[in-house]
Amino acid sequence: MTLPVPFEHVREELRDRDAAAFVHVGREDDPTLRYLGRAGRVDGELAVVVTAESAMLLAADAPAAARESFPGDSVLPAGGEIPTGERVAAVLDDLGLSGTVLTPRTVPHDAALYLEQSGYEVASTAVVEDARVAKTDAERLRQSTVQSAACAGMRRAAAVLDATHVHEGRLDWEDAPLTALRLRREVDAAVAAEGMLSGYTAIGVDGEPATPRSETTIEPGQTVVVDLAPQGPDGYHGRLVRTFVVDGDGGWTRRAQLAAEGALDAAIPQLSPDGGDSVVTELDAEVTAYGFEPSPDSGGYGVGLERHERPTLDATDELPVGAVLALDVRVSDPAEGTVRLADLVAVTEDGGELLGAFPRSLSP
Amino acid sequence: MTLPVPFEHVREELRDRDAAAFVHVGREDDPTLRYLGRAGRVDGELAVVVTAESAMLLAADAPAAARESFPGDSVLPAGGEIPTGERVAAVLDDLGLSGTVLTPRTVPHDAALYLEQSGYEVASTAVVEDARVAKTDAERLRQSTVQSAACAGMRRAAAVLDATHVHEGRLDWEDAPLTALRLRREVDAAVAAEGMLSGYTAIGVDGEPATPRSETTIEPGQTVVVDLAPQGPDGYHGRLVRTFVVDGDGGWTRRAQLAAEGALDAAIPQLSPDGGDSVVTELDAEVTAYGFEPSPDSGGYGVGLERHERPTLDATDELPVGAVLALDVRVSDPAEGTVRLADLVAVTEDGGELLGAFPRSLSP
Repeated sequence: MTLPVPFEHVREELRDRDAAAFVHVGREDDPTLRYLGRAGRVDGELAVVVTAESAMLLAADAPAAARESFPGDSVLPAGGEIPTGERVAAVLDDLGLSGTVLTPRTVPHDAALYLEQSGYEVASTAVVEDARVAKTDAERLRQSTVQSAACAGMRRAAAVLDATHVHEGRLDWEDAPLTALRLRREVDAAVAAEGMLSGYTAIGVDGEPATPRSETTIEPGQTVVVDLAPQGPDGYHGRLVRTFVVDGDGGWTRRAQLAAEGALDAAIPQLSPDGGDSVVTELDAEVTAYGFEPSPDSGGYGVGLERHERPTLDATDELPVGAVLALDVRVSDPAEGTVRLADLVAVTEDGGELLGAFPRSLSP
Repeated sequence: MTLPVPFEHVREELRDRDAAAFVHVGREDDPTLRYLGRAGRVDGELAVVVTAESAMLLAADAPAAARESFPGDSVLPAGGEIPTGERVAAVLDDLGLSGTVLTPRTVPHDAALYLEQSGYEVASTAVVEDARVAKTDAERLRQSTVQSAACAGMRRAAAVLDATHVHEGRLDWEDAPLTALRLRREVDAAVAAEGMLSGYTAIGVDGEPATPRSETTIEPGQTVVVDLAPQGPDGYHGRLVRTFVVDGDGGWTRRAQLAAEGALDAAIPQLSPDGGDSVVTELDAEVTAYGFEPSPDSGGYGVGLERHERPTLDATDELPVGAVLALDVRVSDPAEGTVRLADLVAVTEDGGELLGAFPRSLSP
């Protein structure tokens, strides 16, 4: 299934605002450029230009790869001595255009100035950000595939934790203390073996904030929060958070896990276009019903070409069918630890639909 | 060893240009923000503000993690309803500043406009890009560590290729055809197991351009170019390219490999501050001496927080001691395939010094 390219959305915006062109400039990992350019891995600065007639990609390197994947009309060389913004202005001049050029608000300042120096009026638009909120079937399929890799990583985390044994009061794995860092590397290797990128994996032990290099060892009974946000080759993210306890005593952590699981089960059905503002209410009500204080960190956020993107679950943001969100619930107690669960959910007319499935059990 | 934070370079630039502050706004993977902010994994937009007195990071999420790693004076909340540029202007106003604000040329256009609306004059500076060219010992050490992960990935590629056998004219591995994609996943898992990110791995078979999803199978005698550019948790890159042939006939590919290896050996000693413009000349001369046409794709480029960054090997760019470059040589023949070798090299007074070492043999 081919990914969508919303040149038509952009062109509609050009018509509505009586503008000559849409322009953005940035690096390969810029979400707007990924969405419109689909250019894959390109070194240096890129630009996308959309007019009523034509969609163009300016790319410094790997133009062969870019030509293969760009869904627009032409790929032009860039880079070298001439700044990208100046090249874009020259392309617009060659097309005989004038008037207003729309850009995302984050277009590089120098590119905007080159356009203004060439006589164009620069105005900002959120058309691409808006278009990105509701995912197409093809985008959701990519996110499902990435989420499968998250599940593979989580399976590896559970398998490693399950294979530990207690030694001098902490967990040993393969004859050495299991640290958050060792666990992360095992998880990341499993995610990479699925063809996905694993840059964000975070392992939090006993409620401590997770850092990539943590040499924290793990003790029996401590909560281990495994937070995965793998990214696919097209830039789309998944999100999966689970909490494990090895040799738990079944007290606080067990009740906290039930609260978190209950909260997800109550909130997921609310993820419909009408239900947006009730999702967080449901999450918090369920946590409260289990006798815990709701956490300000529980909630939901859009997931796509960015780890956090629109929609929010504020009343101010629409929740369209097709939006993909992480629902993320956290129960914390400074004396006991943190239980956190997050799943990836797509919005449908009838409520949320899980993308991927992984058991929520505390026991690895 | 702690990574450098060139607030002093920035402050010198503020003094030289009689400016009140340096400001940049962007996402966590922006090289300038990584260099100055060291903020790790933060969702949403970030800003760094450097004045004569103080260095501040504005971060939307994970302020605890950001506070821990930011080497400046304070971490302030950002995100939410107020645009980052407006917040930055308010911070400068609170400090009683006025006059010129320096920014990289790529500062988001809206941030520049917010600053101008608050009465500041915005002017661009390359001070951070300039500071990034010569790596400190601590940065080079990070790059060596990343390069070790590249070597681990390459060892895995060689091991997989070595374990193949010929079946129906192509290479099988673990009872199924070995594709470029399967080989990439094995390599990426090995890189991730070393704690590094493997987003750029590219496998090119028989001179074809490499794509991340390639289902290309591999035949005996075909050249397999394995191109690795892993990235460490701090953002620094390595680069390692090797070419393998399983069951080669020892003809063209063997001679091409000798030419590429000879070219690297001849060019590496030229990587001193005086030798910059002779490096490419040496590469090409050596390839020619072996009876091949020099490739326009052979050359060198800086490697650091970006896969390609300054210095270039143009006569226009300085080659300071401490700069880290990839030297990348390619010998191609449409009828025979491509042999490509690249190593990571640090510039010293006496010529280049290899970071990491991996055999250059064609045989896996």
